[in-house]
Amino acid sequence: MFFASDNAGPAHPSVMQALADANTGYALPYGSEQAMEDLRRDIRALFEAPQAAVYLVATGTAANVLALATLADPWSAIFCAPMAHIREDECGAPEFFTGGAQLTPIASPEGKIDPQALRQEIVRKASFGVRGPQPGPVSITNVTETGTVYTAQETAAICAVAKEFDLPVYLDGARFANAVAATQSAPADLTWKAGVDALSFGGTKNGLLGVECVVFFDPAKAHEFELRRKRGAHLFSKHRYLSAQMQAYLKGDLWLELASRANAAGAYLAKGMQEAGATFAYAPEANMIFAKWPREAHLRLQKAGAVYLPSDGEIGAGDPADMLEARLVCDWSSRREDTDRFLEILAQ
Amino acid sequence: MFFASDNAGPAHPSVMQALADANTGYALPYGSEQAMEDLRRDIRALFEAPQAAVYLVATGTAANVLALATLADPWSAIFCAPMAHIREDECGAPEFFTGGAQLTPIASPEGKIDPQALRQEIVRKASFGVRGPQPGPVSITNVTETGTVYTAQETAAICAVAKEFDLPVYLDGARFANAVAATQSAPADLTWKAGVDALSFGGTKNGLLGVECVVFFDPAKAHEFELRRKRGAHLFSKHRYLSAQMQAYLKGDLWLELASRANAAGAYLAKGMQEAGATFAYAPEANMIFAKWPREAHLRLQKAGAVYLPSDGEIGAGDPADMLEARLVCDWSSRREDTDRFLEILAQ
Amino acid sequence: MFFASDNAGPAHPSVMQALADANTGYALPYGSEQAMEDLRRDIRALFEAPQAAVYLVATGTAANVLALATLADPWSAIFCAPMAHIREDECGAPEFFTGGAQLTPIASPEGKIDPQALRQEIVRKASFGVRGPQPGPVSITNVTETGTVYTAQETAAICAVAKEFDLPVYLDGARFANAVAATQSAPADLTWKAGVDALSFGGTKNGLLGVECVVFFDPAKAHEFELRRKRGAHLFSKHRYLSAQMQAYLKGDLWLELASRANAAGAYLAKGMQEAGATFAYAPEANMIFAKWPREAHLRLQKAGAVYLPSDGEIGAGDPADMLEARLVCDWSSRREDTDRFLEILAQ
Amino acid sequence: MFFASDNAGPAHPSVMQALADANTGYALPYGSEQAMEDLRRDIRALFEAPQAAVYLVATGTAANVLALATLADPWSAIFCAPMAHIREDECGAPEFFTGGAQLTPIASPEGKIDPQALRQEIVRKASFGVRGPQPGPVSITNVTETGTVYTAQETAAICAVAKEFDLPVYLDGARFANAVAATQSAPADLTWKAGVDALSFGGTKNGLLGVECVVFFDPAKAHEFELRRKRGAHLFSKHRYLSAQMQAYLKGDLWLELASRANAAGAYLAKGMQEAGATFAYAPEANMIFAKWPREAHLRLQKAGAVYLPSDGEIGAGDPADMLEARLVCDWSSRREDTDRFLEILAQ
Repeated sequence: MFFASDNAGPAHPSVMQALADANTGYALPYGSEQAMEDLRRDIRALFEAPQAAVYLVATGTAANVLALATLADPWSAIFCAPMAHIREDECGAPEFFTGGAQLTPIASPEGKIDPQALRQEIVRKASFGVRGPQPGPVSITNVTETGTVYTAQETAAICAVAKEFDLPVYLDGARFANAVAATQSAPADLTWKAGVDALSFGGTKNGLLGVECVVFFDPAKAHEFELRRKRGAHLFSKHRYLSAQMQAYLKGDLWLELASRANAAGAYLAKGMQEAGATFAYAPEANMIFAKWPREAHLRLQKAGAVYLPSDGEIGAGDPADMLEARLVCDWSSRREDTDRFLEILAQ
Repeated sequence: MFFASDNAGPAHPSVMQALADANTGYALPYGSEQAMEDLRRDIRALFEAPQAAVYLVATGTAANVLALATLADPWSAIFCAPMAHIREDECGAPEFFTGGAQLTPIASPEGKIDPQALRQEIVRKASFGVRGPQPGPVSITNVTETGTVYTAQETAAICAVAKEFDLPVYLDGARFANAVAATQSAPADLTWKAGVDALSFGGTKNGLLGVECVVFFDPAKAHEFELRRKRGAHLFSKHRYLSAQMQAYLKGDLWLELASRANAAGAYLAKGMQEAGATFAYAPEANMIFAKWPREAHLRLQKAGAVYLPSDGEIGAGDPADMLEARLVCDWSSRREDTDRFLEILAQ
Repeated sequence: MFFASDNAGPAHPSVMQALADANTGYALPYGSEQAMEDLRRDIRALFEAPQAAVYLVATGTAANVLALATLADPWSAIFCAPMAHIREDECGAPEFFTGGAQLTPIASPEGKIDPQALRQEIVRKASFGVRGPQPGPVSITNVTETGTVYTAQETAAICAVAKEFDLPVYLDGARFANAVAATQSAPADLTWKAGVDALSFGGTKNGLLGVECVVFFDPAKAHEFELRRKRGAHLFSKHRYLSAQMQAYLKGDLWLELASRANAAGAYLAKGMQEAGATFAYAPEANMIFAKWPREAHLRLQKAGAVYLPSDGEIGAGDPADMLEARLVCDWSSRREDTDRFLEILAQ
Repeated sequence: MFFASDNAGPAHPSVMQALADANTGYALPYGSEQAMEDLRRDIRALFEAPQAAVYLVATGTAANVLALATLADPWSAIFCAPMAHIREDECGAPEFFTGGAQLTPIASPEGKIDPQALRQEIVRKASFGVRGPQPGPVSITNVTETGTVYTAQETAAICAVAKEFDLPVYLDGARFANAVAATQSAPADLTWKAGVDALSFGGTKNGLLGVECVVFFDPAKAHEFELRRKRGAHLFSKHRYLSAQMQAYLKGDLWLELASRANAAGAYLAKGMQEAGATFAYAPEANMIFAKWPREAHLRLQKAGAVYLPSDGEIGAGDPADMLEARLVCDWSSRREDTDRFLEILAQ
């Protein structure tokens, strides 16, 4: 009964096989291997973006901050949701890699940036002239940190505001596969066709050992990204082990199959929780659930070995009937029997 | 009728005289001059802090960011009011000098940080562990950016929260003289006795050409500040022209006299505006006023040559009766006849 | 006939097996997995350092710059060989991660820092007082960038100079295993017993897919390193795949066996080249050779498919008898038959 | 007998008068004052550069590092003389402001960069591709740190190398006035006509209280400089006191008159020292002298109150006949009688 995070599950067997297959003889280092050339072609095809610049890094934070640093200036304000991973969970990595950009929170009901609030804050920041941080990139996350999903239309509404002020848009796609699975939209529709300039296409939370793909739809800044990646110590010499993982991820749309599994597991869990009386803080639209249920049920579940993240860190003592919030995440390897057992204990 | 800013007024004649007096022969550079030694003694006496480390820089932003960088780590969250000068008006200088600290806004009714909101956010940030920015310095501004003034007691309440988590407190004192004049408190009571670890004691807005004094009550980090000042290109070779200004400022409590004049001018203006029907966005407690009055009076005043800052940048066309906000600031050199004329036009 | 780099060879089969073994079910992320706990114990035993702080990262540059940033201040001068990897091959990553330290070259005959030259430069730098960069860490590389090896005694001589000025010493050990194999010294003798404060213990060039171990013998700065690693985007969520590799590396002293193989291959190649008339720019003491031989033989070798790095980038046209320098590196997977063929063509 | 530095002398009386004249009523802040507009025009005329962007800052280091940061990327190598002020005397400010550029020393006999050595190092750095710091700005200093002077032709030779690789050239002109006086060349000939892209035109060492002018001949990066200046805390609110100084400096070519005085004082001192048997480390071509003379004469001079900088920090005990080096600098206010007395004691 493990629902703590989708970054704690195993890699898919076909990914492990791809690693083994790649482990023969010498290979040119630093992304010069043939596999990377092939992969670049495949990513471009997947995103219907024949000019795109395509890179691999090994952590989601690396993808976010190297891309944002390429899109931002040191004096930029980067607009994001208050609960954005880049603002709350990366120990200031965006500030470090950008050289000091200011992460500026925008009102984000349901975890999604409100376009009107975004517009107001851009106008306000711009009013300071040279005295203040300068309006810079807009960063959205899809699937959001609250488990909701931006549709292509919602993404386009935010991008339209950014474009009005000639600002770039970055998409933190650590769970982009889950967003595609949830919306049934084409990757291009959720990204460049809506106005997104660059994204991370995550694999680590969805069946890889640790690879994220960074895509710039406009390759103009590709060389700068390469310098930043090297300078950030994120260019792998034995790069073949990254490209092999991502190739396996693309092959036969494994990425979509695994994300669909995770979403289905999430939906099954959410449905069962709702039936058991839990209430949701946000609409559970993908594989992540923020829900409230009574303390007594929390204690039962934890005693039975369920692993998940209470929003306040831990389930302390108090009224057994108190409704306490927690986060639960399913991944591709979530097992139905674990979920059933979880629901059974919850419902007792 | 100039009310745009207290950074636009002239230097006081006795400051000019001090500059002239200092301009004789050779003087040791970089703060080694005798005048700096004397000044250090006088600042320590003024603040009743015999161990304090005392430095001079030439801009308010330099004082803020060099001090904050000394108190913070690159991975710190710096807690401040949403409208803090360091967050809105310094083009990201704090982020630059700290190496990427995150300026974290705290609810601040009347421009003053709410201690409970501060406490909650510190606890929340700390809950992220190594994943998030680490709780760091608390930065307050007195006189605040909204023209209100922290009392010694209010300052102590904020410092108490910070101390609970072993966090340092910085005071942006660009208008500290005005705060002293407004509260009639001793400098020590508004600072280290309340729990403040370091402050800037501003002179530029109050009769100097451009000097701010940075005071660390605990000298442990003095050497680091010296390195940061040099590395920030803020160590003056002909430092005697800074120390001469600050000496003149202290002599006979000129700083307090000038701030009292500015506050009195502000109070006179505020009283007149109130009588003329203006309403205040914040209580005008020192030399800065945020007020609303009808568009038609704005247009009359501007036509007559009054200079001040409308909050929306400019007074556009529209209903003559619309109440539009503006900021007005008095300084030591504000003339009663200008204020009277302003009030007369306002009241027409 | 691949001698371009030891970062282009395959991973050892037992490392691949360890990855597969680690790929079961859920594991706590971010280094909280049990394997990391075990590994920490094993590294401490290997280095006879029961208090050491032990971390894993995925690239050699990450190990170098995160460790150096922890040891240095932003205003430090970091003393290193002119040809140090950190100075020439990391795109300024050390400057980036330290916040702007100055890499200061010290005369290094045979690729090894000269202790007297080091001492002189430290004294000189210190003479500038607050005006100049402050003397900071000394960084050595063992195996050096020229293929020579510091003995324990030579290491101690450098550390003694550093300690005289209370400066920390870092050891870039991307090829530390080869240095141990070459010197037959204990890891402790080549490091903390000689005065080294922290090192990277490299695996990527010696049979792993991509893991380097960072060891601080004094754990006082361990927490700072953890923050820097996270902030540098180098903390892996699925950390188990790093610890599994390093565990396999330690098991049965695989690291030493592989390095010994690489060194033996290097020695065999060097001996053959010498017999064929090549001359060495530096004494080839481990698995890396800098040698000169006639252009005509270069052309023959390249035509036959030999891969290695000419020091001037390429073998251009010119006098067939010109002696041109190149770098050759052997790794654990170098095959005797390739080397024999290389030597045969060279000797024709 | 003060020869320690030209940054220790007084400001010229007409500069003090200009400050007094500027001290009337309110003035728009931040460089919006009319005087700055006038000054911009005058600087453009002086440099025959009608498009130039013109800014004022208050320290020489600020001018250097803000300009270099505008010309460089964080991953740049900045080529300079080993003894360049930016490398040795600014506590790492260039590394800080550029975000981590690498100051790369080039062989510089007589303190002047050797164009061939520069060319070789650029080629070598470029050979590393994405792995190494990227070739960036070339920075020269005129008058050099050794007291020699680049002619227009020598400047052009260096710029030609830079332009071959499309690299910008910066001129640290803390003593540019002295270089103009020494070469009798037009400012344009020593700068943009030779290929210089930006320079600092120093005033602080030559009769001002503390103002340096930064000139970009191509205004394309002017806005970026403005952001960097604000973000560096170097934008003065009461900017009028900077522009007033620089206006006085330009009026009637005061800058050239004062520099000519300083150079003449230096030449007179050098001639006398040579006659007294001192030997020069470098040709004294402006107002700065590096000379050797016997310890006994050093001791005599110091006893008599002469102030200057021994190259080893102090004149210790030892053989009275030892030839010990020292630096002496004259400024506009150097008095003939002091020099005569110095020479008299030296010659005893």
